[in-house]
Amino acid sequence: MPKIVDHDMRRQELVEASWRVIARDGLEGVTMRKVAAAANCTTGRITHYFSNREDLILAAMRAVYNAAGKRMAVISAGNLDPAAKLQRHLEETLPLDEERLEEWKVWIAFWSAASSNPDLAGENDRRHRKWRNSLIPLITGIAPQADAGLEADILLGIVDGTGLQAAVNSTPANRARAKKAVAEQVSRLVRAGRG
Amino acid sequence: MPKIVDHDMRRQELVEASWRVIARDGLEGVTMRKVAAAANCTTGRITHYFSNREDLILAAMRAVYNAAGKRMAVISAGNLDPAAKLQRHLEETLPLDEERLEEWKVWIAFWSAASSNPDLAGENDRRHRKWRNSLIPLITGIAPQADAGLEADILLGIVDGTGLQAAVNSTPANRARAKKAVAEQVSRLVRAGRG
Repeated sequence: MPKIVDHDMRRQELVEASWRVIARDGLEGVTMRKVAAAANCTTGRITHYFSNREDLILAAMRAVYNAAGKRMAVISAGNLDPAAKLQRHLEETLPLDEERLEEWKVWIAFWSAASSNPDLAGENDRRHRKWRNSLIPLITGIAPQADAGLEADILLGIVDGTGLQAAVNSTPANRARAKKAVAEQVSRLVRAGRG
Repeated sequence: MPKIVDHDMRRQELVEASWRVIARDGLEGVTMRKVAAAANCTTGRITHYFSNREDLILAAMRAVYNAAGKRMAVISAGNLDPAAKLQRHLEETLPLDEERLEEWKVWIAFWSAASSNPDLAGENDRRHRKWRNSLIPLITGIAPQADAGLEADILLGIVDGTGLQAAVNSTPANRARAKKAVAEQVSRLVRAGRG
């Protein structure tokens, strides 16, 4: 009987291994050999799924965006009121635990590479825009008269900016600062919606 | 007669050369040889001023912070009203022209390295805190009743977050978005100060 191989699962294992290597060593530290070691497999298996290092890195970055996207979809489908939903949505992308901190390290490494690579920069813009647009209905639900696009840019700016500092130096103070800044801006939006 | 050498100026030339290499190739692309080529000198001259690659990178990062700091000091000493001063102060660190875009690329490369290097992460925190604290008197001048620390965190979050996206993909739309988000938040602070 032939061995049954779940190719999607295998591929996902390799993506997660590269993710760990990026978080630990940065993008420049990613080699097929290191990812193979982290995934406990041969480099041959990796080249079976990914034609080169760039393919693997792009797959890791997409997986990070998708992991956050899935958590947000769960929140969106839940029963929270719009303000609590928005708050949770934004916090879901702050580096407040080990899992999200690791995702952030992948993002930072990716941004560093993208700032001198137009293809990666374009990919980043598309992902960021998608994330931004997902906030619009939540903002409109809280403050129908607001310029939802502008509010989304401000909120995502705060998430990206405070999250960045908390990911670069993951101290309790930096994490608390990120959380508080985001919560405060959401509260102001709620007050503006009532006013 | 012996040749007169301005060591500070030589050192600064090397720092600026490494800055150009980081902006073009990322931190991982920085080698003594490449910096020598960019500075049009021998690698021997570089090792005369910097004991190793890490020294040079740290000097480049400090120089970028200092360059922004000098521009801010000029604004602070000027005759603008507090709101205009705050606005200019924040814009001075957005990647709105080639010079500041290059600084941003150095920052992003540095953050990527710092996220897996506690010494660099600590240095980044100290610099960031200094920058944050420089905003407090400006904020208090505009809105004396505000929690100036919290407002500074929100404003710097917006600068870091929208600036990051505009530096990763330097499109007119991303630059305009960063500028608008910052201006809007400053206007709100002004209105809160009057209210």
